Amino acid sequence: MITNNTESIGIVETKYFTFAESPNELALECGRKLGPITLAYETYGEMNADKSNCILICHALTGDAHAAGVHDPDDGSLPWWDNMIGPGKAFDTNKYFVICSNIVGGCKGSTGPKSINPETNKPYALDFPMVTIPDMVHAQKALIDYLGISQLMCVVGGSMGGMQVLQWAVTYPDMMRMAIPIASTARLSPQAIAFDAVGRQAIMVDNNWQQGNYTDNNVPSGGLSIARMIGHITYLSDKSMHSKFGRNLQDKDNPEYDFVTEFQVESYLNYKGDVFVKRFDANSYLYITKAMDYFDLAQPSGDLKKELAGVKAAFLVVSFSSDWLFPSYMSKEIVSALRRNNVDVSYAEIQSDYGHDAFLLEVDSLSRLIVNFLEYADPLNGHEDEY
Amino acid sequence: MITNNTESIGIVETKYFTFAESPNELALECGRKLGPITLAYETYGEMNADKSNCILICHALTGDAHAAGVHDPDDGSLPWWDNMIGPGKAFDTNKYFVICSNIVGGCKGSTGPKSINPETNKPYALDFPMVTIPDMVHAQKALIDYLGISQLMCVVGGSMGGMQVLQWAVTYPDMMRMAIPIASTARLSPQAIAFDAVGRQAIMVDNNWQQGNYTDNNVPSGGLSIARMIGHITYLSDKSMHSKFGRNLQDKDNPEYDFVTEFQVESYLNYKGDVFVKRFDANSYLYITKAMDYFDLAQPSGDLKKELAGVKAAFLVVSFSSDWLFPSYMSKEIVSALRRNNVDVSYAEIQSDYGHDAFLLEVDSLSRLIVNFLEYADPLNGHEDEY
Repeated sequence: MITNNTESIGIVETKYFTFAESPNELALECGRKLGPITLAYETYGEMNADKSNCILICHALTGDAHAAGVHDPDDGSLPWWDNMIGPGKAFDTNKYFVICSNIVGGCKGSTGPKSINPETNKPYALDFPMVTIPDMVHAQKALIDYLGISQLMCVVGGSMGGMQVLQWAVTYPDMMRMAIPIASTARLSPQAIAFDAVGRQAIMVDNNWQQGNYTDNNVPSGGLSIARMIGHITYLSDKSMHSKFGRNLQDKDNPEYDFVTEFQVESYLNYKGDVFVKRFDANSYLYITKAMDYFDLAQPSGDLKKELAGVKAAFLVVSFSSDWLFPSYMSKEIVSALRRNNVDVSYAEIQSDYGHDAFLLEVDSLSRLIVNFLEYADPLNGHEDEY
Repeated sequence: MITNNTESIGIVETKYFTFAESPNELALECGRKLGPITLAYETYGEMNADKSNCILICHALTGDAHAAGVHDPDDGSLPWWDNMIGPGKAFDTNKYFVICSNIVGGCKGSTGPKSINPETNKPYALDFPMVTIPDMVHAQKALIDYLGISQLMCVVGGSMGGMQVLQWAVTYPDMMRMAIPIASTARLSPQAIAFDAVGRQAIMVDNNWQQGNYTDNNVPSGGLSIARMIGHITYLSDKSMHSKFGRNLQDKDNPEYDFVTEFQVESYLNYKGDVFVKRFDANSYLYITKAMDYFDLAQPSGDLKKELAGVKAAFLVVSFSSDWLFPSYMSKEIVSALRRNNVDVSYAEIQSDYGHDAFLLEVDSLSRLIVNFLEYADPLNGHEDEY
């Protein structure tokens, strides 16, 4: 059953896989090459004898490889999908071998703009080549090959993780049996591009940014914090903000008529911004948001159905009713294009007030859908018809 | 008829009214006093003999007193509501005497943080007292008194202009016969507060801001531009962005894989930001957004119906279907509270893809509603029942 969401998988560790060493650098979509590439990754559960129980989790914009468990018994908080991954949970580690890798371009142990450029022995900064969602997926594929897995049972992810899921299904159709893109889209909307662009500009006009060549002691925290605050507004719904904060002031009854942080919603955003600048690299934020902006699975033809023609995986597509960043119509667009290609697709719109953040919060609804899907939609189980 | 929207009212001039001179400074909601206060204003059309045809237009966040006509025959562009104000237009200057004043706290000729503080002979900057929507309305009332008008025919405005309309109806119920709040709200939502707060923070972390003491040659243009870009995203709808920009690149077919401005939507926002910093004062942006944040007509009781109990004006409330900054439910909340007070209120939700900006763009639909309302809902005309 899925109800026991309190049991953690326990102590886990981050591992590192390095590949694409000279002269075998990874050819990127932008035309440049990158190597060596290190990917930070974690695994949970045990691979079965025929390696048929492997699930790849793709993380969102600011996520990382540490999706479940703790690194130390004293860890103060649980990682981003701990309530979804573990014994008896949606991604049941008693049954499945779960892999989560940090993306290339990230700043959580994988090669990114903060890494040392072997040609200069200095951090890449803006010399780092532009990476795209397909590049991230190519790098993940190298990790999956390294782990000796010839076919993933499922690739799953929310938000930008869902973009990677879709890209996997298109680029490596034989490498996976099932796919679960959650709160995602086949192409980033102009509105989302606009929010990303403003966030990047906030970073780039910060005096500390220095064309990307800031030092650890002098990061563009003002700009990065603003980018994060903008992001956070788009992750919540109008309704969730009403119920979470309303128009309440922070720690007082009457306004100060000053430019201090007064409203609870301001205080919340400031806090989120402050925490974020301590854990995330500003240049990585630039690269990853740009990768999202470039994502358009309907290209080059412009016809999403045509571009999805090679997909073989069975799909569970999930969206959330109050998500206005990646609204349900975007998921329905994916569903429609897949169905017109006769792909086995299930679709659910979960009623939720949490907005885009629902993919991290609607654990019970998501778990029910995923448990059923993983059990009944796997072609290997032979009871696909019953689903 | 309303169809002739091309005829301009011609040459107009901005006038200035100064009041609240020592020792009669205006008492502000924050507890401080402000004076002297100058308001920039314009008038269009002629006042009739019994001064019963006077319409006050309240402008939005970044608007100004120059709502119609041109200052010079060579003016390159028409002001913000030129298509609504003029001979034969919705606010027909052949019939009505139309007044538009810049708000106190603004930077377009009215006293604001850029004005000289008589106590220091330097610009107020952050010594300027916090002004609120009620303060803006009190200042407008002084102008209306000065013009010798004992009762306005109508007070009208969109967005923050609509907030002023509502405040007028509550604070000076006998001073107006009709009210038209468009795309507005009785209280700013936490989501809108959040966007405002991030915009302010962008200005305040700009190194040029200098605690508000920047010079004309060194304004916090980076931060102000970001604030404006954030604002602009909230003024458009997802759908209008799709039809206006889509995912198109600017002046090229293929991406450059660089952090230059690439997508049309980025280019549009950058342009809007660049233009804005040349015409608007950063400190004014801080003060005016904060005034919007404080606006909550349901206070002090928390009961909007109760706070609107004294309203006497007949109302036309207008919202736009795709406005997600001030969505229709906010206008419906106003309508409901007014109706429960037995106020004569008409409500229209105009179907539009333009988002919040629709109040500047849906000229034909708006004009039809307003022309009818002004003609038939005026108690002075005695055919209120027919409406």
